[in-house]
Amino acid sequence: MKLLIIGSGAAGSTAAQFARKTNRQAEITVLGNEHYSEYSKCGLPYVIGGIIPSFDDLIEFPPSWFQHFKINLKLENEVYDIDPEGKIVKSISLKDAEKEEHQYDALIVATGANSWIPEIKGAFLDEGRLKEGIFTLRTMDDAKQILKRVERGKRAMIVGSGSIGMEMAEALSRRGMKTYVRLRTHMLTGMIDEDMAAIVQRRVEEHGMHFIPRVTVSEISGEGRVEYVVLSNLDTEEETEYPADLVIISAGSKARVEVAEKAKCRIGSTGGIVVDKRCETSVKDIYAAGDCTEYPDFVTGKPSLIGLGSIGVKQGRVAGINAVGGKEEMPRGVLNNRTTELFGLEISAVGPTMKELKRAGIEPIVGKFSGSTLPSYFPGKKAISVKVMAHPEDGKIIAAQIVGEEEVHQRINVFATAILRGMTLEEFMQLETCYAPPAAPTLDCMTLATDAALMRWRRR
Amino acid sequence: MKLLIIGSGAAGSTAAQFARKTNRQAEITVLGNEHYSEYSKCGLPYVIGGIIPSFDDLIEFPPSWFQHFKINLKLENEVYDIDPEGKIVKSISLKDAEKEEHQYDALIVATGANSWIPEIKGAFLDEGRLKEGIFTLRTMDDAKQILKRVERGKRAMIVGSGSIGMEMAEALSRRGMKTYVRLRTHMLTGMIDEDMAAIVQRRVEEHGMHFIPRVTVSEISGEGRVEYVVLSNLDTEEETEYPADLVIISAGSKARVEVAEKAKCRIGSTGGIVVDKRCETSVKDIYAAGDCTEYPDFVTGKPSLIGLGSIGVKQGRVAGINAVGGKEEMPRGVLNNRTTELFGLEISAVGPTMKELKRAGIEPIVGKFSGSTLPSYFPGKKAISVKVMAHPEDGKIIAAQIVGEEEVHQRINVFATAILRGMTLEEFMQLETCYAPPAAPTLDCMTLATDAALMRWRRR
Repeated sequence: MKLLIIGSGAAGSTAAQFARKTNRQAEITVLGNEHYSEYSKCGLPYVIGGIIPSFDDLIEFPPSWFQHFKINLKLENEVYDIDPEGKIVKSISLKDAEKEEHQYDALIVATGANSWIPEIKGAFLDEGRLKEGIFTLRTMDDAKQILKRVERGKRAMIVGSGSIGMEMAEALSRRGMKTYVRLRTHMLTGMIDEDMAAIVQRRVEEHGMHFIPRVTVSEISGEGRVEYVVLSNLDTEEETEYPADLVIISAGSKARVEVAEKAKCRIGSTGGIVVDKRCETSVKDIYAAGDCTEYPDFVTGKPSLIGLGSIGVKQGRVAGINAVGGKEEMPRGVLNNRTTELFGLEISAVGPTMKELKRAGIEPIVGKFSGSTLPSYFPGKKAISVKVMAHPEDGKIIAAQIVGEEEVHQRINVFATAILRGMTLEEFMQLETCYAPPAAPTLDCMTLATDAALMRWRRR
Repeated sequence: MKLLIIGSGAAGSTAAQFARKTNRQAEITVLGNEHYSEYSKCGLPYVIGGIIPSFDDLIEFPPSWFQHFKINLKLENEVYDIDPEGKIVKSISLKDAEKEEHQYDALIVATGANSWIPEIKGAFLDEGRLKEGIFTLRTMDDAKQILKRVERGKRAMIVGSGSIGMEMAEALSRRGMKTYVRLRTHMLTGMIDEDMAAIVQRRVEEHGMHFIPRVTVSEISGEGRVEYVVLSNLDTEEETEYPADLVIISAGSKARVEVAEKAKCRIGSTGGIVVDKRCETSVKDIYAAGDCTEYPDFVTGKPSLIGLGSIGVKQGRVAGINAVGGKEEMPRGVLNNRTTELFGLEISAVGPTMKELKRAGIEPIVGKFSGSTLPSYFPGKKAISVKVMAHPEDGKIIAAQIVGEEEVHQRINVFATAILRGMTLEEFMQLETCYAPPAAPTLDCMTLATDAALMRWRRR
């Protein structure tokens, strides 16, 4: 059987990996439209920031890996059409414009996403390209262009304070740029609530980063290249000009679905390809995985545009296995288990934010606890804050957010497991957490935050 | 109502804490038989090793804490009798031998455990006391005595390679003693299997500790004080004399149940007090918590003697809440979620070891994965090894062991949650784990170990 995969990113390459594990005979071809073999997009800010020495380090599946597993990798090929009846994919080489047709038995669409750029006056040159000095970060080429512009002592403005925006802010700041972040409400709004973001903001400010609160970008001025960013206050509408040498626009993403649309795959309300538990689209034998797809949120049931590499590879695995005759399913929804680090502070969250819960009509029971990662008497203990949210009707845990100096990431995985398995606050209190003085306290901060929520739930 | 608690350790004091939270009117009295207010027993090796500066640091609930919460704390009082019909506890002061009777409505027995000392020729003086230079570690006074004997350059022999034995071995080694550990099979047998222990042994040996494999202690010689430990090879029965200035016997513990026996509480096959989900004993209104109790193992259903502070405080909480009229339950069994650190290497386990599983007639499906805590391209990533075990009949996860340089402890909590909620290997594969380059890989080592087990399970 012939499996064709469009996209050589994390989702596409993982699909190829697990398809091969499942079926040693299948003929597998991966078409990528970039020059590079599979690399970590999430690693790009860390090369820009100088933590990872070289862009080449980010290559996770080099061409030799594909060769070893007898997977046919064709880079710098853009797919421009799909014929779902004839099961043919048409591609064009970006090197020599040569066209090619690929027959498939099963197809996996893993075309990823593009950066979404809001309408900002003065951001574009006449030709529709971004003005010199304005960047988005999506590909390795984007990152290489940004790194060329980085200069110690100069000013950078980050438009967008999500995790990529904040990771870029840290990276530029580490390279000695004076870095400003414009905030509408609080940072990392898609990840954590205002109270948790306040802890993070304090840390980031201690490292010399500047936040400009309650503003939106009304204009980027400068002849040919960026010179000033004009910010407009959301309350007073007062405008202020900030000089800037480099602007990073990190305002979200847009699923790349043109090719899937040509195959008549159903596109959902978020703009992503609709897939089922098996990662199959509305068109038989066409699967999709990664940032080009949408999937229901586990808690609210509302469609959620996939934007996490961790989900992309899970979908890639499921799509790859099913596409070649195996059997594997995604859970009924995505937990959006997400994490980042800013100046050594660990920030993790799972499930919807308070705002998203309220939008879905859920007024959660909240428990909070701030303590330390080790028993109070143990040297080197670090501060940690935990927030847990439960459904007011059944007491089931539906979301959690943790900010702390260490041991945050894996604690969010504990809550993710609890949410996936429908654990109530009461049931979570029965969980034995591990304890040893150099490891964790007898009653973990997760337990104590849950106890606070449980007491509220019982009094409701 | 009058609540009386026998024992001012972690279980007893936590019982008092949650009883007070639940019932602000209750008259609560805690009787302790030591000189000190509640302190961390698990912290003792870290004072001996010089990591924690002073024994006083280990006090977690000082007398002022009891005062603040209007809990009557009576230290240096030994309970010598209980009249369960009349609901009276009789105690004697260890300071002035004054006797006292205490009326109760509810009683919590949290008398802990003593060190168990095997029959070793020459270990005891005529009076039944241990020979000078031989110690067990259970109380703060034990630890203070040991610390007095510690001397750089001298030789220490550890009899018992469980977590306390190994933590003491590290402590003495840090203080500059030449430290030997006698092994029967492998170290940490109650915690991890031989393959995982091999990883730990390599690390510990790198730090200058010596293991003497396949031996048992046949004699401790010396006039009045220890001079030599005679070790006998388990295979050849050949005996070898090792000079020793200090011997730590850490061979397990024995529940302190004399008082509970007087109240006619049922004692189980492990020698611990039998309690139900509410932590009530076989005698109405008498509860028990901590190291003096036994409880079924979650996986095998066999009675398990409690020996973990984390379980003790969980039981303390449940006993305290129920004893004063609240409602709280333990799960159907204990997971024995346990952890330690040796020379910076983190070691965690949950559920029965292979040996315990086989003894219970379960031949588990095993998956193993050795990788790193961060993506391969991220600087500072550390080695980590994961072993996961599933029940051969239903594929449910029943045990896990992890050894690594970082982020081990909280990962074991993820598996603990999975076991508690009856998650199968297939369901665990659906778990979204958090991902960011400085935090964790897209496919976590837990996921990849589970995938290995799942592939075996499907082929079974």
